[in-house]
Amino acid sequence: MAPHTAEWDQKELFPVDVMRKAAQLGFGGVYMRTDVGGSGLSRLDASVIFEALATGCTSTTAYISIHNMCAWMIDAFGSEEQRHRFCPPLCAMEKFASYCLTEPGSGSDAASLLTSAKRQGDHYVLNGTKAFISGGGEADTYVVMCRTGGPGPKGISCVVVEKGAPGLSFGKKEKKMGWNSQPTRAVIFEDCAVPVANRIGAEGQGFLIAMQGLNGGRVNIASCSLGAAHASVILARDHLKIRKQFGAPLANNQYLQFKLADMATRLVASRMMIRSAAVALQEEREDAVALCSMAKLFATDECFAICNQALQMHGGYGYLKDYVVQQYVRDTRVHQILEGSNEVMRMLVSRSLLQE
Amino acid sequence: MAPHTAEWDQKELFPVDVMRKAAQLGFGGVYMRTDVGGSGLSRLDASVIFEALATGCTSTTAYISIHNMCAWMIDAFGSEEQRHRFCPPLCAMEKFASYCLTEPGSGSDAASLLTSAKRQGDHYVLNGTKAFISGGGEADTYVVMCRTGGPGPKGISCVVVEKGAPGLSFGKKEKKMGWNSQPTRAVIFEDCAVPVANRIGAEGQGFLIAMQGLNGGRVNIASCSLGAAHASVILARDHLKIRKQFGAPLANNQYLQFKLADMATRLVASRMMIRSAAVALQEEREDAVALCSMAKLFATDECFAICNQALQMHGGYGYLKDYVVQQYVRDTRVHQILEGSNEVMRMLVSRSLLQE
Amino acid sequence: MAPHTAEWDQKELFPVDVMRKAAQLGFGGVYMRTDVGGSGLSRLDASVIFEALATGCTSTTAYISIHNMCAWMIDAFGSEEQRHRFCPPLCAMEKFASYCLTEPGSGSDAASLLTSAKRQGDHYVLNGTKAFISGGGEADTYVVMCRTGGPGPKGISCVVVEKGAPGLSFGKKEKKMGWNSQPTRAVIFEDCAVPVANRIGAEGQGFLIAMQGLNGGRVNIASCSLGAAHASVILARDHLKIRKQFGAPLANNQYLQFKLADMATRLVASRMMIRSAAVALQEEREDAVALCSMAKLFATDECFAICNQALQMHGGYGYLKDYVVQQYVRDTRVHQILEGSNEVMRMLVSRSLLQE
Amino acid sequence: MAPHTAEWDQKELFPVDVMRKAAQLGFGGVYMRTDVGGSGLSRLDASVIFEALATGCTSTTAYISIHNMCAWMIDAFGSEEQRHRFCPPLCAMEKFASYCLTEPGSGSDAASLLTSAKRQGDHYVLNGTKAFISGGGEADTYVVMCRTGGPGPKGISCVVVEKGAPGLSFGKKEKKMGWNSQPTRAVIFEDCAVPVANRIGAEGQGFLIAMQGLNGGRVNIASCSLGAAHASVILARDHLKIRKQFGAPLANNQYLQFKLADMATRLVASRMMIRSAAVALQEEREDAVALCSMAKLFATDECFAICNQALQMHGGYGYLKDYVVQQYVRDTRVHQILEGSNEVMRMLVSRSLLQE
Repeated sequence: MAPHTAEWDQKELFPVDVMRKAAQLGFGGVYMRTDVGGSGLSRLDASVIFEALATGCTSTTAYISIHNMCAWMIDAFGSEEQRHRFCPPLCAMEKFASYCLTEPGSGSDAASLLTSAKRQGDHYVLNGTKAFISGGGEADTYVVMCRTGGPGPKGISCVVVEKGAPGLSFGKKEKKMGWNSQPTRAVIFEDCAVPVANRIGAEGQGFLIAMQGLNGGRVNIASCSLGAAHASVILARDHLKIRKQFGAPLANNQYLQFKLADMATRLVASRMMIRSAAVALQEEREDAVALCSMAKLFATDECFAICNQALQMHGGYGYLKDYVVQQYVRDTRVHQILEGSNEVMRMLVSRSLLQE
Repeated sequence: MAPHTAEWDQKELFPVDVMRKAAQLGFGGVYMRTDVGGSGLSRLDASVIFEALATGCTSTTAYISIHNMCAWMIDAFGSEEQRHRFCPPLCAMEKFASYCLTEPGSGSDAASLLTSAKRQGDHYVLNGTKAFISGGGEADTYVVMCRTGGPGPKGISCVVVEKGAPGLSFGKKEKKMGWNSQPTRAVIFEDCAVPVANRIGAEGQGFLIAMQGLNGGRVNIASCSLGAAHASVILARDHLKIRKQFGAPLANNQYLQFKLADMATRLVASRMMIRSAAVALQEEREDAVALCSMAKLFATDECFAICNQALQMHGGYGYLKDYVVQQYVRDTRVHQILEGSNEVMRMLVSRSLLQE
Repeated sequence: MAPHTAEWDQKELFPVDVMRKAAQLGFGGVYMRTDVGGSGLSRLDASVIFEALATGCTSTTAYISIHNMCAWMIDAFGSEEQRHRFCPPLCAMEKFASYCLTEPGSGSDAASLLTSAKRQGDHYVLNGTKAFISGGGEADTYVVMCRTGGPGPKGISCVVVEKGAPGLSFGKKEKKMGWNSQPTRAVIFEDCAVPVANRIGAEGQGFLIAMQGLNGGRVNIASCSLGAAHASVILARDHLKIRKQFGAPLANNQYLQFKLADMATRLVASRMMIRSAAVALQEEREDAVALCSMAKLFATDECFAICNQALQMHGGYGYLKDYVVQQYVRDTRVHQILEGSNEVMRMLVSRSLLQE
Repeated sequence: MAPHTAEWDQKELFPVDVMRKAAQLGFGGVYMRTDVGGSGLSRLDASVIFEALATGCTSTTAYISIHNMCAWMIDAFGSEEQRHRFCPPLCAMEKFASYCLTEPGSGSDAASLLTSAKRQGDHYVLNGTKAFISGGGEADTYVVMCRTGGPGPKGISCVVVEKGAPGLSFGKKEKKMGWNSQPTRAVIFEDCAVPVANRIGAEGQGFLIAMQGLNGGRVNIASCSLGAAHASVILARDHLKIRKQFGAPLANNQYLQFKLADMATRLVASRMMIRSAAVALQEEREDAVALCSMAKLFATDECFAICNQALQMHGGYGYLKDYVVQQYVRDTRVHQILEGSNEVMRMLVSRSLLQE
């Protein structure tokens, strides 16, 4: 993906063909079961894969990781019928998935969502708006958290809405600081009828499913930051070795050497946090939620700082779109905000500490 | 400028008309003498003005500040004839100026520049390339540091090259992470003949003039960061008061309150550093260079961090181009790099400390 | 004081004689009125003086600054009779003062204090305990905030309790990480009778008086941190110049040069914050409380970091008590905690921001 | 050790008896071979053990870890005769060991050491001074790096000097900021004759042996910081839960909750860095040196910051010697300086990066 990432960013292209090629390598459903086309790999494998892909194009990989999260939710919580209906085209990335939780009025406080799903016979009729939806408008399979019951998390269910459903429409394509290779739009439901057969899990189980998805999503997105940071360290190192000032390579400057050492150290620490959270999640350990939150918090903060410092090391070149380092900075910036902002991560971690 | 800043950024417009209106208010030559159209104000005034303008459009203000720096160099070091020839259209911003010091091979090590100016009769013939030139291609008046003598700083002279000069051409318009309302291009000299009468100051005095210009330039650019950071704090505060999560305004979150307090505290510290450097420069105090370097280092680092934290406080909205806070982040990012990178600032400060 | 500071620290001596000599220079009542023996100087002067003294012995200076705060409270809010009775011996430091606000159960939440003062005829009878009292046991004049009315800040009055009062006793001398040249003890009131004539200001005005004192106290204590940091930068610079490793002075290491530049920059920023708060306080400007809080927060945090970095630059020597830099670290550490912890400073600053 | 740590600190006691009890549990030679009394455990085990012990008394554990490093050097590089002669009493801690590398004039630049060892028959005659020697004066077995050949690392050999050797004396006991349960003294050689049979390894191999020892020493000392930080997080958490202000436990303050989350996150990251370096060292992997350096750099910096933040959370209590948190701060402070300062760690890491 590396040769195209700048073009996708600047032209805001959603690289459908390239993602389908990635799916042929098994990246459409990395940690899904093989009977529906998944690759049957572990969370740890997924982390390694997303890190590697993100060195090529962070934004596209981040979308692929969201797609994986959605597809896994159906694989993990759907009935056999649903799994075989929805998952194969998702694993092949013939169809693309979007995760629809956030609303204009509910970000960090996701459980307060207002999108309603009223049952009428064998359909739910949805009304409401989802905001900041990655893939919105282009994706085919919307995994939507909506309110089938009373207020709070227990009134929420998870339903799959397919593109083309009556009453489903989209907001304008958002202009963003980065993540330009994936479209972001509001997803709007106006009396949108969805078959009850599209509900994943039981009524009221939706918030739980959404949170389970996010645990993996946090490891994934942190892995994307990691790939960007890894690539940035390499770029910075190479630039320091080649670029000369004051008659010698920049790499001869002790201050820059030591900064590079700090960057590499924090990169390694980020990687360990992520890998360890991935293993905990795979093993369904009790501390998995806390470790995934810590990994997301630590790695997305540190990796953004690493990319940003790598930009600085490039001097004026780092600010030009001809140099990809600024794109890593812009793309990873949003990882500190989404899939639970890093403030929400602190909330989750402190909660687990104080309840001990 | 505030209503237009997003459009100028996204369409990469150089707002010539608006800048000319600013010039009518005296912002084209803020700290220049009045006999050539300058406003005759102090460095402190300039700092206040650039801070205020930068709350509207940081990128455009940054260009205006560079224009001021160039025009001041002619005012301060030019002959009477030169002052009256060049300065009035610059003060009125009928003509725009560019500062041409950096070359592809010489950034932080500016004194190693290679652009040559060989004297032939009453002309200098220039050959070489200047890189990252703000206003490049659109500006009319290029204040060029070039080598008329031997290696090192003492072989450098300062000449004014006017648009249309034979042998003057420009590179492609650079695509950048920010600063999009001002064009950046390489400025190329191929046997470009310039009258000796366009030389500002004596032969060999060019580097000194360039550095004197930069002292003010550093206070100016830091003031631009300050304006962006000030505006970001206001935006963040207002967003915290209005945006509700968990049934209450974000402003009720103690963590965000305390972060906001840190931001405001560092904003105030940045402002004091800048104002104090401006006064020292105005008074031509011995510690002016160190104070200007400290102010640039401190304020551009802290103000970028403030803007970036303000973005975080906006959540997902902060990442959208509909919200100006991300533009402050992108625009101020380059202030840590140019007019002497913050690494060069540390070099200057430590030199003054260790020579005491 | 510099030649004695290590001894005072290690032997935990309260240098009464030296402080009395300082009082002869006018440092016992720097910003008090001259008719009661004060020096009649400004807050800005006081800041400069405390900074200078703290380079010699930070801990002793910090106590002197607290003494000044207490004496000023009597000077500012006492009756003419009280001013002339209490202030002259305080200005001369024949008597030493202690500030008694904090209790074991009320630190940051000072207004919840429990020490009661029940009026019986022309006396108040005090019961309760004050904690962490600088000068406790050695001081002569205790400026005590106690509850004469209902709960909350408006039920608090300020009374002066003199050493020897019946029912006044002291806890054990606390062992501390630093601040060893000043004794810290609990101050205990058991049916301690104090003349009503010792009440400073009106009943219920005590909390206000305490807070007014603290505004100045915060500028003072920040000035003490500043002096320690200034001395630490000088020590570090000199050590870097003299100490050789790898065949050259440590000062030749670019990383250390740049760190030193950062330290000096943050020192200058701290000084500006403090000076500017002092002026605002002197001028009784509306923003004085916010500026004093910001100055205390910024300067005590940054100056501790500067001292700590200076220690690091000394290598193993920095950890030895033969080298004073470690004492600056230990002494300034508590400045981030007392006279309103830096968390309380953030609370005050954010409150002023969000109420705008 | 926990019940005694404050007393050992304040009275500067070297707890010989308690250490001998620890040796009975196998902690005198954790990762040494069993035939000489070692426990035969791995580096990973050692890290877990030192972390756990350091929660009790960081300073004492740090000394035990240095003792282990010295004894291991003899075990790993000594002849069979030497192993059986020196190691058993060291494993039992009947004898205590000191590591003698640093000199007054050579800290970070260890390879420039000047202590000379001139061969005379079957003895070396040592002259020179070692500085900052942990256990100096109390220890029995000094593992001394001295110059038997020309300048640079290849002229250095490693010899064991036993207490009581003629010409061996000690400087005054240093007064330190922390690490008070272990004595620190200069070790002085004046025509000190040592049998050639006490040389560990070949002539010229001493620097290599010293560095191999330090790789483990760095993991060990980082583990000691980790134990202190872990204990500090627990103390802070418990204090936040118990201490009430503003009518509620401090733990209700979101700012403190989030800070606690950051501390715990960085603690976990530190632990992973250390464990992973221990494994790399055990497996003699090529990246072991870089990982040990990264672990020491990251963990000792982060863990000091954690202890220091925990102190802040204790308010005024944190500054009192009745509360152990301030001792963790003082004890861990030196871990950023010794066994290769964190500046040297950055040098090692950057070297490995730039040579790739």
